[in-house]
Amino acid sequence: MSDVVAPDKGRHGRGDKGVANRIVVLSGGVGGARLVDGLAAILPDWALTAIINTGDDFIHWGLTICPDLDTVMYTLAGLADPDRGWGLRGETFRALAMMQRYRGPSWFGLGDGDLATHLVRSQALARGESLSDITARLCRDLGVQQRILPMADQPHPTAVDTAQRGTLLFQEWFVRERCRPVLRGIHLGGTSEPAPGVLPAIDEARFVIVAPSNPYVSIDPIMSLDGVRDAVAAKKVVAVSPIVAGKAVKGPLADMIRQIGGQEPSAGAIAGHYGALLDGIVVERGDEGIIPGLPTLATDTIMKNREDRMGLAGRVLAFGESLL
Amino acid sequence: MSDVVAPDKGRHGRGDKGVANRIVVLSGGVGGARLVDGLAAILPDWALTAIINTGDDFIHWGLTICPDLDTVMYTLAGLADPDRGWGLRGETFRALAMMQRYRGPSWFGLGDGDLATHLVRSQALARGESLSDITARLCRDLGVQQRILPMADQPHPTAVDTAQRGTLLFQEWFVRERCRPVLRGIHLGGTSEPAPGVLPAIDEARFVIVAPSNPYVSIDPIMSLDGVRDAVAAKKVVAVSPIVAGKAVKGPLADMIRQIGGQEPSAGAIAGHYGALLDGIVVERGDEGIIPGLPTLATDTIMKNREDRMGLAGRVLAFGESLL
Repeated sequence: MSDVVAPDKGRHGRGDKGVANRIVVLSGGVGGARLVDGLAAILPDWALTAIINTGDDFIHWGLTICPDLDTVMYTLAGLADPDRGWGLRGETFRALAMMQRYRGPSWFGLGDGDLATHLVRSQALARGESLSDITARLCRDLGVQQRILPMADQPHPTAVDTAQRGTLLFQEWFVRERCRPVLRGIHLGGTSEPAPGVLPAIDEARFVIVAPSNPYVSIDPIMSLDGVRDAVAAKKVVAVSPIVAGKAVKGPLADMIRQIGGQEPSAGAIAGHYGALLDGIVVERGDEGIIPGLPTLATDTIMKNREDRMGLAGRVLAFGESLL
Repeated sequence: MSDVVAPDKGRHGRGDKGVANRIVVLSGGVGGARLVDGLAAILPDWALTAIINTGDDFIHWGLTICPDLDTVMYTLAGLADPDRGWGLRGETFRALAMMQRYRGPSWFGLGDGDLATHLVRSQALARGESLSDITARLCRDLGVQQRILPMADQPHPTAVDTAQRGTLLFQEWFVRERCRPVLRGIHLGGTSEPAPGVLPAIDEARFVIVAPSNPYVSIDPIMSLDGVRDAVAAKKVVAVSPIVAGKAVKGPLADMIRQIGGQEPSAGAIAGHYGALLDGIVVERGDEGIIPGLPTLATDTIMKNREDRMGLAGRVLAFGESLL
C-alpha cells in the first residue's frame, strides 16, 4: 500500500519514516474505528495517526470513561466485540450486576475487563499524567502500534439540549435516554486546546481522512479545538459518508441531521456539513447523485468484516492520493 | 436463643429492642466472619453488633479496599465464596486479567463483582461520606440486617517490620509476599479515634465476644483505638481461640506468635496475649489443659459449615451468659 500512499515518489519506500506519507484520520467510535482498523492493516504502523473524539468522555462510577478512544484501541488490538462494536470480546458484566444491587447507575454497560482500562486511566490521571501519555501506554500494553491521539488532554464535554429533558451530557442522551429526547442543539464545551500531538500530526499529514463518524458529536468536537480546523483546511481532506441510502449506518445520526441540520439525511447533507473543508467524499454506490460539485468516490462503504474494512481503507487512500 | 441471651430477664423477650441483651463481637476476616455468621443466625438481627478490623484496609487500583469488612458483609449476605472464605461466590477475574495486560499490580485478587463494592465505597468516601455510613448502606443493599461497624472511619493502617523486606503494609506482607518475610514487629498506625458507633455499642453490650481472629493484626488494632480497651475491660469478655492444637486454623498466626510473641502457638498463648481482658476462653477440645486460671469452654471450634458456625455461636453465647 505504500505504493498507493506515495505512488510517484520512489523515496517513500517501506520502512521510510519520513513524514511526507503519514496519514491522519479523524474519528469517533464504532464506525470510525472500523475504518481506522482497515487503514492500520494496510499502512505501515508509523504512517497512521488517529485523532479521536473525546467529547463523549464522562465520569462514571468515579472513573474517567473515554468511549471512542477505547473503541478504537480495542478494535486495533483485535479485542473489540465484533457484534456490538464497543467493549471487549467475550466481556462479562458481573460488576454491573453487583452495582445494580447497590442501586448504583447501571445504564452504561461497563464490562468487567473494560473496568481495568478505566481504573488504570483514572489512576494515572489522578497522578497528573496526560490523557495522551496514558493512551499511548495503554495502546503499547495492548500491542497497538499505531498512534492514537485523544483530541484533547483536558475535558471537552459535548452536551445536548433536548425538548423533553433539558441539557444532558452526550452519553446520558445517547445511552441512558436511548436518543429519545428530541434534540434542539449541541454544545461543545470545556477546553479549547487540542492535545499536544494533534496539530503537528495534522501539519505533517499527507492528507486527512474524516472517518464515517457522526459529524456533530464525533468530528465537530475535534474541529472545534483551537487551530484544528485551519490545520485541516490546509490539507487535502477526504470524508467517508456515515449516511448510506438516507440512513445512518449506526447510531442516531439520521435524526440528528433532521433535528439539528434541518434537512433530510443524505451523503449530500454530510458534504454540506463539512463544506469547503472537503476535497473529496467517499459515499455508498447510489448516493453519488446527491453530491454536487465535489470529487466523489462511490463504492462499497459498509464494513461487515475485516476484508470490507481493508477494501474501503485502500480505496479511500487511493482516492485521497488522486486528489493531491 | 433469646432465652440464653437473657435467661433471667423476662422483660427481654423476642422483639424487645432494649439494649441489655445486645452482643458485641470484635472480628477480623474469614475465621471471625464465620462466627459472626453463626451468631447472626441465632440472635435477633438487632441484637448483634460486629465491630470489624479496618487495619488491613489499603488503596489498590485507586480504590479503597476493606478486606475484613467485605468478608463479614459478604458472609452475612450469603454471598461469600464458601471455599476461599473471602470474595464473592462464583466470582470471575476478568478485570484482573486485563490489569495484568496493563502491567498493573495483580497480586491482590480483586474479583469482578467485588469491584463494584470498592467502586461504590471509594466514590462515597470521595464525596465525604463516612466509612460507617457507607458500610451501613452497602449492608442494607445486600440484605444484611445486623449492625456491622468499621472500627474506625479514618485510616488506621497496620504495617509490619520484616527482616528481608523492611516495612510493609499488612496486605503487602500477607498477600503479595505470602507471609514469607520474617516478622520483627507490628505497627498500628493512623487514627486513634474509633468510629462513632463503636464505644456506645460496647457500652451497651451484655458481653463482648472476641472472634477467632488474629490477635495481632485483627483484634489489637481495634483494641488500640482510644477508649476501646477500657470499654471492653468494663464488660465480660469471651474469646474464641484461633489456635487449635498448636496450629492456626487459617493464615499466618502460628508464625506470628513465634516471631512476635516469642512463644509456641497455643490457646494458652492467645489467653496470655489478651491477659486480664478475658473472663473466659473457648478452645478446641484437647487445648483446655494449657490455659491456667481462666474459665474455659473446650468444644468443637472448627467451622466447616453453617451448622458448625451456629453450634459454636450458640455455645459461645451460653458460655458468655454463664460468666455474667
